[in-house]
Amino acid sequence: MPHFNRKDIDQMDYLFRINLINCCSGYKSANLIGTKSKDGYENIAIFSSITHIGSSPPMLGFFLRPTTVVRNTYDNIKETGYYSINHVHQNVISDAHHTSAKYAKEISEFDSTNLKSDYKDGNDIPFLKDAPIQILMKLIEEYHIKANDTILVIGEIQELYIKELLLGDDGFINLSKGHVAAVNGLDGYCIPESPIRFEYQRPKQVLK
Amino acid sequence: MPHFNRKDIDQMDYLFRINLINCCSGYKSANLIGTKSKDGYENIAIFSSITHIGSSPPMLGFFLRPTTVVRNTYDNIKETGYYSINHVHQNVISDAHHTSAKYAKEISEFDSTNLKSDYKDGNDIPFLKDAPIQILMKLIEEYHIKANDTILVIGEIQELYIKELLLGDDGFINLSKGHVAAVNGLDGYCIPESPIRFEYQRPKQVLK
Repeated sequence: MPHFNRKDIDQMDYLFRINLINCCSGYKSANLIGTKSKDGYENIAIFSSITHIGSSPPMLGFFLRPTTVVRNTYDNIKETGYYSINHVHQNVISDAHHTSAKYAKEISEFDSTNLKSDYKDGNDIPFLKDAPIQILMKLIEEYHIKANDTILVIGEIQELYIKELLLGDDGFINLSKGHVAAVNGLDGYCIPESPIRFEYQRPKQVLK
Repeated sequence: MPHFNRKDIDQMDYLFRINLINCCSGYKSANLIGTKSKDGYENIAIFSSITHIGSSPPMLGFFLRPTTVVRNTYDNIKETGYYSINHVHQNVISDAHHTSAKYAKEISEFDSTNLKSDYKDGNDIPFLKDAPIQILMKLIEEYHIKANDTILVIGEIQELYIKELLLGDDGFINLSKGHVAAVNGLDGYCIPESPIRFEYQRPKQVLK
């Protein structure tokens, strides 16, 4: 069984290390974050770190490095206070992945790909057109992670749009019915099929 | 297309809301965190919020509420400074999900399920035996998330064990070869198949 200790990881070739460490946490969500600058430039960029933080109030978080491509996303969120989260359908994976390229602020990924923007209900934040799930988020808190100079951005869900087929009577959203992607590492995408669901769990009697 | 605004979400039935909001971020990782208290009680509990934070130094984070079942996990991490992260193979999904039941500290989930503990290289932290990926983590930082009183726990990877079949020449870990689960919502599990990989992306010429 291959085994790497901390020293091995620190001494690895750069690409080997980023593949390894980006894969080792397990499957990740595939989301496109849509934003607009105060002066009207649209941006959409892929993120795989969007995480559930709480349901009441409904909150999601994600991590970003202040010094990389995602700076446009962060700057726009700081300027307007709002952003959209959109799920990646299997038909747009290639374009979604392309949004990881480092474009200047003035170039919209909506122009450099076949992704289309979508405006809803009078909000001036771009959503991804036809995404199975679209969420309007309001920035509420951010935390500077000292250990590696990243930022945790936390937002509250303001509006949630879901394709009807995916939504169950109990509020469960069946992501497989939306052909939504999951991410493996930095560059691997898969489309999981029908989930098995389990009951709420209570303790069993344990005989030692 | 069903649409819920913030007020709708706040007024929802509790179960409908926790299903909806736990599903809406997309697929999540399925990991069992193994810990041991200072006085020797083992604990293993399922988490779906483990997230990549950085590769150099290699860091992963996860969120927990201080007042729920996961208190044992948190207390043990605070006592010893260490914990293990283990991936959920398809054969142990039912037992893995059962670790979400609220057991007292003195009852180990290793006794109430068929999950087996595994000790490695002189470390006194329990791993999950036969997990496709096993990681020894050292606590380095924690952040109190004010908006909903949760805690972000950040650790550094100390040791990383991977089943040989999963590991590629470039450091990519093919999770599908390990039959590793992804989580949909609170209680849905799926086993994604063979990922498609894409190249590193550079900007294209854009004609407006």
